[in-house]
Amino acid sequence: MIRVAIIGATGYTALELIKILLRHPEVEITALTSRSEGNPHVASVHPQLAGRINLSMADLGPSEIGARADVAFSCLPHGVTSSLVPKLLDAGLRVVDLSADYRLNSPEVYAEWYGQKHADPTRLGKVVYGLPELFREQIRGAELVANPGCYPTSAILALAPLLKRGLVSATEIIIDSKSGVSGAGRTPKLTTHFPECNESISAYNIGRHRHMPEIEQVLSTASGATVEVIFTPHLVPMDRGILSTSYTKPLAPLTEEKALDTIREFYSNEPFVRVVNHLPGTKDTAGTNFCDITARIVRGRLITISCLDNLIKGASGAAVQNFNLMYGFPETTALN
Amino acid sequence: MIRVAIIGATGYTALELIKILLRHPEVEITALTSRSEGNPHVASVHPQLAGRINLSMADLGPSEIGARADVAFSCLPHGVTSSLVPKLLDAGLRVVDLSADYRLNSPEVYAEWYGQKHADPTRLGKVVYGLPELFREQIRGAELVANPGCYPTSAILALAPLLKRGLVSATEIIIDSKSGVSGAGRTPKLTTHFPECNESISAYNIGRHRHMPEIEQVLSTASGATVEVIFTPHLVPMDRGILSTSYTKPLAPLTEEKALDTIREFYSNEPFVRVVNHLPGTKDTAGTNFCDITARIVRGRLITISCLDNLIKGASGAAVQNFNLMYGFPETTALN
Amino acid sequence: MIRVAIIGATGYTALELIKILLRHPEVEITALTSRSEGNPHVASVHPQLAGRINLSMADLGPSEIGARADVAFSCLPHGVTSSLVPKLLDAGLRVVDLSADYRLNSPEVYAEWYGQKHADPTRLGKVVYGLPELFREQIRGAELVANPGCYPTSAILALAPLLKRGLVSATEIIIDSKSGVSGAGRTPKLTTHFPECNESISAYNIGRHRHMPEIEQVLSTASGATVEVIFTPHLVPMDRGILSTSYTKPLAPLTEEKALDTIREFYSNEPFVRVVNHLPGTKDTAGTNFCDITARIVRGRLITISCLDNLIKGASGAAVQNFNLMYGFPETTALN
Amino acid sequence: MIRVAIIGATGYTALELIKILLRHPEVEITALTSRSEGNPHVASVHPQLAGRINLSMADLGPSEIGARADVAFSCLPHGVTSSLVPKLLDAGLRVVDLSADYRLNSPEVYAEWYGQKHADPTRLGKVVYGLPELFREQIRGAELVANPGCYPTSAILALAPLLKRGLVSATEIIIDSKSGVSGAGRTPKLTTHFPECNESISAYNIGRHRHMPEIEQVLSTASGATVEVIFTPHLVPMDRGILSTSYTKPLAPLTEEKALDTIREFYSNEPFVRVVNHLPGTKDTAGTNFCDITARIVRGRLITISCLDNLIKGASGAAVQNFNLMYGFPETTALN
Repeated sequence: MIRVAIIGATGYTALELIKILLRHPEVEITALTSRSEGNPHVASVHPQLAGRINLSMADLGPSEIGARADVAFSCLPHGVTSSLVPKLLDAGLRVVDLSADYRLNSPEVYAEWYGQKHADPTRLGKVVYGLPELFREQIRGAELVANPGCYPTSAILALAPLLKRGLVSATEIIIDSKSGVSGAGRTPKLTTHFPECNESISAYNIGRHRHMPEIEQVLSTASGATVEVIFTPHLVPMDRGILSTSYTKPLAPLTEEKALDTIREFYSNEPFVRVVNHLPGTKDTAGTNFCDITARIVRGRLITISCLDNLIKGASGAAVQNFNLMYGFPETTALN
Repeated sequence: MIRVAIIGATGYTALELIKILLRHPEVEITALTSRSEGNPHVASVHPQLAGRINLSMADLGPSEIGARADVAFSCLPHGVTSSLVPKLLDAGLRVVDLSADYRLNSPEVYAEWYGQKHADPTRLGKVVYGLPELFREQIRGAELVANPGCYPTSAILALAPLLKRGLVSATEIIIDSKSGVSGAGRTPKLTTHFPECNESISAYNIGRHRHMPEIEQVLSTASGATVEVIFTPHLVPMDRGILSTSYTKPLAPLTEEKALDTIREFYSNEPFVRVVNHLPGTKDTAGTNFCDITARIVRGRLITISCLDNLIKGASGAAVQNFNLMYGFPETTALN
Repeated sequence: MIRVAIIGATGYTALELIKILLRHPEVEITALTSRSEGNPHVASVHPQLAGRINLSMADLGPSEIGARADVAFSCLPHGVTSSLVPKLLDAGLRVVDLSADYRLNSPEVYAEWYGQKHADPTRLGKVVYGLPELFREQIRGAELVANPGCYPTSAILALAPLLKRGLVSATEIIIDSKSGVSGAGRTPKLTTHFPECNESISAYNIGRHRHMPEIEQVLSTASGATVEVIFTPHLVPMDRGILSTSYTKPLAPLTEEKALDTIREFYSNEPFVRVVNHLPGTKDTAGTNFCDITARIVRGRLITISCLDNLIKGASGAAVQNFNLMYGFPETTALN
Repeated sequence: MIRVAIIGATGYTALELIKILLRHPEVEITALTSRSEGNPHVASVHPQLAGRINLSMADLGPSEIGARADVAFSCLPHGVTSSLVPKLLDAGLRVVDLSADYRLNSPEVYAEWYGQKHADPTRLGKVVYGLPELFREQIRGAELVANPGCYPTSAILALAPLLKRGLVSATEIIIDSKSGVSGAGRTPKLTTHFPECNESISAYNIGRHRHMPEIEQVLSTASGATVEVIFTPHLVPMDRGILSTSYTKPLAPLTEEKALDTIREFYSNEPFVRVVNHLPGTKDTAGTNFCDITARIVRGRLITISCLDNLIKGASGAAVQNFNLMYGFPETTALN
């Protein structure tokens, strides 16, 4: 049994992580940390977990976590994370980090987009990006995995095959993404207050969203080209799900069949990517670790549609998939 | 033209009030007050109002408000309101108060349910309850009107005819109410955070909701009996609307036809109560000042269904209806 | 491995059943029947199942089903079911019936509420009602189990302890229930058309809903008294979930603690009933086989709140729980 | 008073039209037509209208309509409309057609996209496209106005100023649109069944939606260039609203300020276009006749965001705006 700690256990990604790990036959959750006052029982923070796990949250330090667990899933906000992760590693823990702190390779790019200096800059560039479909082998032996962002996973999985196979231009890419509200986290804000965002759709952070450099970096690494994207996120009145509609320019005439075949072949052995002929909706993937992808040609442009559950394949499911790889368990364990 | 000030203009009831009053041919909105820093333009607080009204919010005192306006609609929270209203009246304003501060007749009951002493206790018991269907004549001449709560309006309109005509017991009344989320106001909270309340229904404040004594007092006043109710509010994942399902015990055998006829006759001259034969849904009344009511008999019990838009007939529409009465305008002005 | 057939596999309960059974280590799904033309692949009917199960639907007769499977879950509509079930049993299958056809004991009551003669009347009264919390022992050996209705499960689980322990009157019971839209099935209708039912709540079938006699019969059987209820269902704009607010009259003075303790003791060994102190929302149980229950006292009345996922504990999860009992598997298999 | 007939009065655009026209001081609604059996009262088809209008629907022919009304708003489906409109005109009526039948100039293009021959081909190309912001003068004298599609209005209003002023390329335009479900009409279908489309977003009809040639034709007419667009519509789980995110390529370096100033100047006298600096959401325009537009520059591309209420500015509000122009009433009458 692998002993698991979840750091920052009050949010939605932690909740999903716990629900998934409770189904994992090789896992025991041994610590849940939080700065909430009074060490609340996990079920008082997450009523869904009543009767399913008997643990209280506690404000534990790295050595205490290290004494109780073999691996830590960190669900803390960016910025805070990079101060803690080195200590967790020093305490002998392996770490899956669900924040953005170890995704970018460059401290300068991090500082530019996240508005603060990175607390652990020397490690940047050496941490594997936890997208098994692209970096499976590096994940297997990793002590620290940077779990991908939700938008990036949806966009990268659709675009990587096209870029790696040289089918489309690396610099004429538009990603128009739509996300459910849980992607904004659990802290109440006016923009996610029900009567504000219900019955409305809006774009936000156009050209300024932090997932834009992440997408560009990973697609550049994967394809060898310098990828540039325009990324436009939208907030949709639903709990979960991301749908990315990506517009690319073929480098040579391309048919829908060829595009679909290329993507399908690329993912032929992947357990969690489904290349489909119909136009998928986010509900098709809700509650699962699947990413559904399809493609269309319109006026010579290639359009891909990709969707996933932002809390599962976009966060906690991917984290468990990475964990399974790190520990040599079948990759789909607890994810079916 | 009547000059109107809206006190506490950042919330949902103020927004609806402005939208309604912009259609009122005899009204000019001359002041919007708020403690927001920097005197923001109303359209930056309420983007729906862009291009429709050119006013900035300001933190005005009673005399400044009195200099600019003839009447004030107060949308402040309870507690704060009763400190301000006496000064507004002294400044020569007539006041429609949308808070709960002047609805209850007794300072003791107020203190018990609202957890604080009333700041203007001697006025309690002398302020008209602004439900035109029951108290139209007193509203006409009033300097101060206590605008009813949203739940109470839905329940009282269904039950008053039955109690006044002596058809049902005054002490065997169960009111099971369901409300959209805007009823909880505009301040972000965990319970109204989209991913918490969407796709869920729950009861809250059972037996402890402050609208319970309000319902009992008004129904007692209207019927002459001592009315006791059990009131159970529920939060429903929708922006607007209240539906109250009320269970009463007939004092003598009663048919559905008799019950419906009684209610229909009671409201035969009312412009905003629709007694219908079908089972109404809140959407039938959305965006309108109507309250729809019907009745059914099951196993000898009388069940009424009543619904309305909590922000219109349950708040700002009723406030304008009261205003129209106070100033002698046709009661439906700006409300069609 | 138990070979499972799902009869009538195009609807929502069938979809949930497949998703649950795919996690069951002792089950192989071997047949999916439907009258859909052209024997569509299950994933073309349920895109969520793409890549998860490779079966086509077929219009199979009882003997064909019997040749392929050991047990059948029947998801057909009432009326149709009772013509087929005898043949399935004759073909050697054990049957979990998710329709209403075998829930009522009396052909006369069935005819009155369902508007048609029962096709298999002699079996009525001999079929176990598949609510493990009340009838676990009879389920174990059963060849045919009548899976409970969604509303009845929510109401019965809350009320049975109170009635069996003699705490409340059997004839002063009001059940005010609220359901998500999936409870209405998958056939498009105006009432479940998105722009009609979204942003609205309404009551329907007051005093005429077919779950009313089912609730009365089961509570009468369980308690030995003649139970009479008033049942008012409401349609809520959400996919899933039922919340039942039930009002009962204590036979002797009763405290909240006593009521909660009685219910908690009654279900102390139950894996899927959670008696909680807080007011639960349907989201707490979404996607799970749990029923959450609490109780409050207001003005001497006892109010229970109970909620569950109508497609899981209210249908397919309960069906698998029954299946597990029938075959001697741990009752929670595939349901955690 | 202008006597108004509404042809095909059972759908959502007819409902909104009636609600708007009831506020119009110069209008009397004198006929509502429908093929519904039994000439139902309008309130039994649209419960929102109970007590607000006392008319029954009837299956009237053109001459009967002509005898009762001066102008007809036609809310019939495409195909049916073009058989009726010539007869309405012959009967002396002026017509605002909310269908697509008279929007395209070419019978060949119509046949290609609508899959049927046009019934009144000689009139095509001579009917004014009812977008006052571009074609106000032609609308004033028109006997027949082709009311624009909902998606086209949102896209055209954002793009026309940029194309007319020569700021962006006419052939590198991507329009990614998102619509609420009422846009799909009132006929129940599986795709608009609540549990199918709620909590999900999906694209549909990519490259095949009939609004694509409409957008291209109108933008070409307005700008004098041959405009080509890629149009991708999405279905969003909300009742109302369209948001179009349009990506264009500037012909010369362009700043955000220049883009916004150009659009703002273009619409400086328009009562229903609001050019805003913030990113608007559809809720800002819900229930109004406004279209909100803003612009952003990302990586040298110009992105516009435009939104409106698909049933008001996207259909019935625009129809009344056209009507006001046709009859010389102030353009905003009944639309504030």
